[in-house]
Amino acid sequence: MTPEALRTYLHDHIPLSRAMDVEVLEASADHVLLEAPLAPNINMHGTMFGGSAATLALLAAWSVMHLKLEAEGPAAQLVIHRTETEYLLPIGGRARATARLDDADWPGFRHTFERRGRARLTVTSDLLYNDQVAGHLVGEFVAISVS
Amino acid sequence: MTPEALRTYLHDHIPLSRAMDVEVLEASADHVLLEAPLAPNINMHGTMFGGSAATLALLAAWSVMHLKLEAEGPAAQLVIHRTETEYLLPIGGRARATARLDDADWPGFRHTFERRGRARLTVTSDLLYNDQVAGHLVGEFVAISVS
Repeated sequence: MTPEALRTYLHDHIPLSRAMDVEVLEASADHVLLEAPLAPNINMHGTMFGGSAATLALLAAWSVMHLKLEAEGPAAQLVIHRTETEYLLPIGGRARATARLDDADWPGFRHTFERRGRARLTVTSDLLYNDQVAGHLVGEFVAISVS
Repeated sequence: MTPEALRTYLHDHIPLSRAMDVEVLEASADHVLLEAPLAPNINMHGTMFGGSAATLALLAAWSVMHLKLEAEGPAAQLVIHRTETEYLLPIGGRARATARLDDADWPGFRHTFERRGRARLTVTSDLLYNDQVAGHLVGEFVAISVS
């Protein structure tokens, strides 16, 4: 999937990503990099609203797991079960969220998924502002077989 | 502050709350109840996007702490430090988020705030769908004196 195709998919299926003006800079089964401007995501302090920042990080985490599943074949519905977000620095402009799958967990996840038709995986995402880590999200997803 | 005044404040200062079409049903220093419709907050499964649900719960938690500080006087800037969200049930329609301050923690928070000019408080918010608890957010806020 190209960055443009992921952007279209997100904007078409999750209207909040369109309202946030989320752009896709990189999209592969290994790594997803998203970006959002400040204006539609601002708060009363002139910085990025925590809800926007957490949602950007969640979209990156969801996307990399979605693309990895798509690349490997098994048809699955992804459901978010739990997120934990840390807000480390105020974000005063465009924010980026970068998510990468931990290769170590993937074989175990795939094994459980094949055997039980559902499995849990934790994906982490970093929020970046001016090349600094401004926040961090840990998301626990459950993939449910739909084949 | 009336529900209408809180709604105007949120929509004017946090454009994402407007994009989500957040309505305020109750607004007091003790309790805030917010609501959001499904359409602008939907995902690819036809249920409420996790980012929207978490943001609705965060807005309720932020609002009740904001209103309590406003009612008691001290001018403070509220900063979110950490959130933890559990998604328990899919939300297939309008969602509500209800937040209430834990009275037990408030005196300690106020004591630290008066002494140090900043203090931390944890606020919880429940997501409701069809009168069932569909999710839960715990938010850790820091209030910083601006007087």
